[in-house]
Amino acid sequence: MKKIEAYIQTFMLNKVEDALRAIHLHGMSVMDIRGFGREKDESYPHHTADYTVNFTPKTKIEIICSAADCDKIVEALRKAAHTGRKGDGKIFVYEVSKAVSILNGKQGEEAI
Amino acid sequence: MKKIEAYIQTFMLNKVEDALRAIHLHGMSVMDIRGFGREKDESYPHHTADYTVNFTPKTKIEIICSAADCDKIVEALRKAAHTGRKGDGKIFVYEVSKAVSILNGKQGEEAI
Amino acid sequence: MKKIEAYIQTFMLNKVEDALRAIHLHGMSVMDIRGFGREKDESYPHHTADYTVNFTPKTKIEIICSAADCDKIVEALRKAAHTGRKGDGKIFVYEVSKAVSILNGKQGEEAI
Repeated sequence: MKKIEAYIQTFMLNKVEDALRAIHLHGMSVMDIRGFGREKDESYPHHTADYTVNFTPKTKIEIICSAADCDKIVEALRKAAHTGRKGDGKIFVYEVSKAVSILNGKQGEEAI
Repeated sequence: MKKIEAYIQTFMLNKVEDALRAIHLHGMSVMDIRGFGREKDESYPHHTADYTVNFTPKTKIEIICSAADCDKIVEALRKAAHTGRKGDGKIFVYEVSKAVSILNGKQGEEAI
Repeated sequence: MKKIEAYIQTFMLNKVEDALRAIHLHGMSVMDIRGFGREKDESYPHHTADYTVNFTPKTKIEIICSAADCDKIVEALRKAAHTGRKGDGKIFVYEVSKAVSILNGKQGEEAI
């Protein structure tokens, strides 16, 4: 099993959610975060000494899925979150060691 | 070392915290998130074209523990977070590669 | 590639951000959380039956980096977040299986 974490533009969340529901995604979690990325480094290194704190609001999505579904979900997410401008964000994948349903105690892919 | 991540009903947090303190858990982190899961798919596929955005508030818990303690913590968490209704949530376990205490620089299990 | 997750004192975030920008960190994500740790267990076990709920605000930082940069970032983060008092927090490192840029679809270290 895999965990997908995506950091996206907040205003793209509805489009991403639509795209993921369209491929019958069973569930996802969303949280508001803030971040900085390369888009903030454009004027670097002129600001090494006196840059301002410039985090921007971002949205983080977390999805746990089977290994078989991972690439499909990542690609749907990437296409839906894409605007073509800096700050579009990143998607990362991690290994899941164990999954347990709180409702029925089922483990592994039966838990999701 | 292991990382436990649980997505639970927000109103179950106090009960979960009690259960984890009862087994002497050394620490945990909590954050407010929102999510959707299978409980929102009950009327699917009638809503493929015009479903509404229906994230519900959830709470995420993060715990880092020794591999030896992991199963005990997962089970205590699962029992405490269980209501028997859809939406109870899930628990996932991940591998931790490295742990460092900011206070004293100790690493591995000495860090937690 | 590695993921670094740090749980730090909220009031140390600006200093940590400065330290990480000083080593040219390309990006990071920040979120407000709450937690309890060993600093809350000082009077334990006198409070087994009637402890109060005492989460304190903390800040979580997430950074994805190349394996080659990981130790340098962890050390810069640790030094900058250190006050010498309980509650300073922890840093954990995880393996990243896959990274994708939403902007250009590049994968691996080219994505970050």
